[in-house]
Amino acid sequence: MVFHVEYPRILPERRPPGHEPAAPRFSLRWEQPVGLLVCAYFGLQGQNLAWDEQKAFFDRLEASFGTDGPVAHELMRASDETGAVNAILVAYWLDATTHARWERAAPFMAWFRDPARLEGPRGVWRETMHVPYDRHETIYSTPDYAIGLARTPGATRASITTNGYFGAMRDRMPVSAIDTLESPLGAVPPRRTPVSLGRRLKATFPLNLISIRSGQYWEGAGNEQTADYIDHLQPKLMRGMAHLASHPEETGTLTLRIMTNLDAEGRPRAETSVHGYFLSMAHLEEWSRSHETHLDIYRHAIAMNRLYKEKREVFTWHEVFALLPGAHAEYANCHGGTGLLPYFADA
Amino acid sequence: MVFHVEYPRILPERRPPGHEPAAPRFSLRWEQPVGLLVCAYFGLQGQNLAWDEQKAFFDRLEASFGTDGPVAHELMRASDETGAVNAILVAYWLDATTHARWERAAPFMAWFRDPARLEGPRGVWRETMHVPYDRHETIYSTPDYAIGLARTPGATRASITTNGYFGAMRDRMPVSAIDTLESPLGAVPPRRTPVSLGRRLKATFPLNLISIRSGQYWEGAGNEQTADYIDHLQPKLMRGMAHLASHPEETGTLTLRIMTNLDAEGRPRAETSVHGYFLSMAHLEEWSRSHETHLDIYRHAIAMNRLYKEKREVFTWHEVFALLPGAHAEYANCHGGTGLLPYFADA
Repeated sequence: MVFHVEYPRILPERRPPGHEPAAPRFSLRWEQPVGLLVCAYFGLQGQNLAWDEQKAFFDRLEASFGTDGPVAHELMRASDETGAVNAILVAYWLDATTHARWERAAPFMAWFRDPARLEGPRGVWRETMHVPYDRHETIYSTPDYAIGLARTPGATRASITTNGYFGAMRDRMPVSAIDTLESPLGAVPPRRTPVSLGRRLKATFPLNLISIRSGQYWEGAGNEQTADYIDHLQPKLMRGMAHLASHPEETGTLTLRIMTNLDAEGRPRAETSVHGYFLSMAHLEEWSRSHETHLDIYRHAIAMNRLYKEKREVFTWHEVFALLPGAHAEYANCHGGTGLLPYFADA
Repeated sequence: MVFHVEYPRILPERRPPGHEPAAPRFSLRWEQPVGLLVCAYFGLQGQNLAWDEQKAFFDRLEASFGTDGPVAHELMRASDETGAVNAILVAYWLDATTHARWERAAPFMAWFRDPARLEGPRGVWRETMHVPYDRHETIYSTPDYAIGLARTPGATRASITTNGYFGAMRDRMPVSAIDTLESPLGAVPPRRTPVSLGRRLKATFPLNLISIRSGQYWEGAGNEQTADYIDHLQPKLMRGMAHLASHPEETGTLTLRIMTNLDAEGRPRAETSVHGYFLSMAHLEEWSRSHETHLDIYRHAIAMNRLYKEKREVFTWHEVFALLPGAHAEYANCHGGTGLLPYFADA
C-alpha cells in the first residue's frame, strides 16, 4: 500500500484548472501509515570550532542513539551571521513514542541538560518538531536520490502533478484543504537578542510557523553540470537567501541556516541544504511568487531540467512542516541571535 | 457530509468478532472537516472562594471572548484535596488559529500574565490542549443532550457499535489503528509538590498523556431516576474516583477534578463531570477492565439503561484526548498539588 491523508476540501485548490506540470516532480509517501513525524536539529556552536570538536559532538550523539534513536540522520555544518560555526545533526523519527523515550534516556540528553554546558566558549542547541502527517509536504526533482525524510524506512517517492504553479507547496500539504495555515501573529514580532551566553533559554514555536529544509545535491555530477551549478544556480540561490535573511519583516524569514553536508571525516560533500523558519506559509509563498531572486532560481532550475531531462545530475528537493505551537527549542550558552531566540525566547 | 478520519489498520482492533453492543451509544461527528481541536481549562483557586470572586473571574473571561473566543464553554466548580475551591471555565475552539489569536490579544490573558497575579491569597491556572482530530474520541449515552465538545458548531452525534467491550475507548480513537499510544515514561514519575505560591510555573505534557472529561447529567430527571442516581450511581462513581485519586502509581491517575456545572448565579446544576489526566490509555483501560470500583459503576449504568431504555433520564458521556508533548499548562500562585505541577513542573 501507499499511505496518504486527504481531506474533503473546504478551501479552494491553487492548481489552475487543467494544469500540466512543466517538469516531473515527486513527493514522499510511506508504505506504512505514519501518524506523527519527529524532526530534531541538534547544534554545537562556537567561534573557530575545529573538526575534532565537531566530531566529538557528532560521535556523542550517534553513540547515544541505541534502539530508540532516529531512523535517519545527517551531519552538516553552517556558519552563522556572527561568524560562529554550527555543527548540526538533523535526525528523523517516524514514531513519536520512540523519540520521546530516546529524549528521556539518552546519555547525550543528560550531557545536553548538564549545567556544565553553560560554561566555556561553546553553545549547544536543539529544535524539535512534532509534525502530524497532514502538516508536512515534500518535493524532489528525482525519485533516485534519498535525503532528509526520504531516508526513513518505508519511504518511496510518488510522481505528482501538484507542482509547477504558485501555491503548489500549499496544495501538497494535506491540511491546507481545510486550514488556511494563517499565522496568529499577523506580522513578524520585533527582533530582540536576549542575554543568552551562560544561560539556558527555551523558545516557543507559534502556531503555523513554517520549517523548510531545501536541498541541493550535485555529488557525482559531470563537469558541465557541476560548473553550471557552481557558476549559475548556486549564486542565484545564495542571492535569494541573502535577500530573505536581510528582509525578515517583509519576507517573514525568522532564521536561515545554510548547511553543508559532511562526510565522516568532516569534509564537505557536494550537497547543501538551507533550513529556515518562516512566520507563515503565505510569507514564503509571496517571496516565491513575486520576488526576482526566487524567480531567478526557479527559472534556471526549470531551464536546466528541460535541457538535460533525465540526464540532469543536479538534484533539488525540500521538506516543509507547518508547526503546532509549544516550547520545543532550547539554547544553552548560545549567542542571542541563534535560531528562534530573537523572536520567540520564553520570558 | 459527516467528517471522520480513519487509518488503514496496522494494530488489531479490540472489538470481539461479531460484537453487538448491549446498549446504544453515540460518538461526536462534525458536519465539516475539523483539523485541530483546542480545549482549554481556566481556573481561579483559593480557600473560601466566594461566589462574587468566582463570578468576577468568569465575567472577566467571558467579557474577553470577542470574535476569537471559544465556540462553546461551561462554568464549573471543584474543591480539591487541600480544601481549596477552584472556579473553572472550560472552553472549546474548532480553529487553532482563532484560539492562538485570542490567546495573544485577550485582555483576560494580559490579566493572567500580570505579575500581580503572584500576590495575595488567590491562584490562577490554565491547561491548554491542542488535539489533532485523530487523537480524540467521545461517547454519549444519548444523542439528545449536548455538552462539552458536542456544543460546538456542526457537531452531531452518530450511533456507534464500538462500545460495550473493554478496549472500545481505544478503538474509537482513530490514531489507535496505527499507534499503541504508549507512554514514553513507562511508569508514573515520583510525585513532588514544588514551591509554587508566589511563583508562576509551567508544566509540560508528556506524549500520550490522556485527558478525560467524564460527565453525568440528570437535570430534569424524575424522582425515581434522580433518587437512583443520587443513592446508587453517584456513590459508586465517587468511590471509583477516590480509588483512582488515592492510587496514582497503580492507576496512572495524575490528577482528578470532580466538577459541578454552575448556572449563571453560581448554583450547582444537576450536572457534574470529572476531568482527569492519566499517564496513558493503557492505565485507564486497566482500571476499567479489572477494578471492581469501575465494574460497579459500569454494571449499574448498563442495568439502568436496560431498565429504562429510551426513558432513561440520567445521561453519561465522556471525551478523551491523547495529548502531544509540550509545555501548555501554567500555574500562577497556585498550591503545589495543583493539576500537573506535582509530576511535570518545568525545572
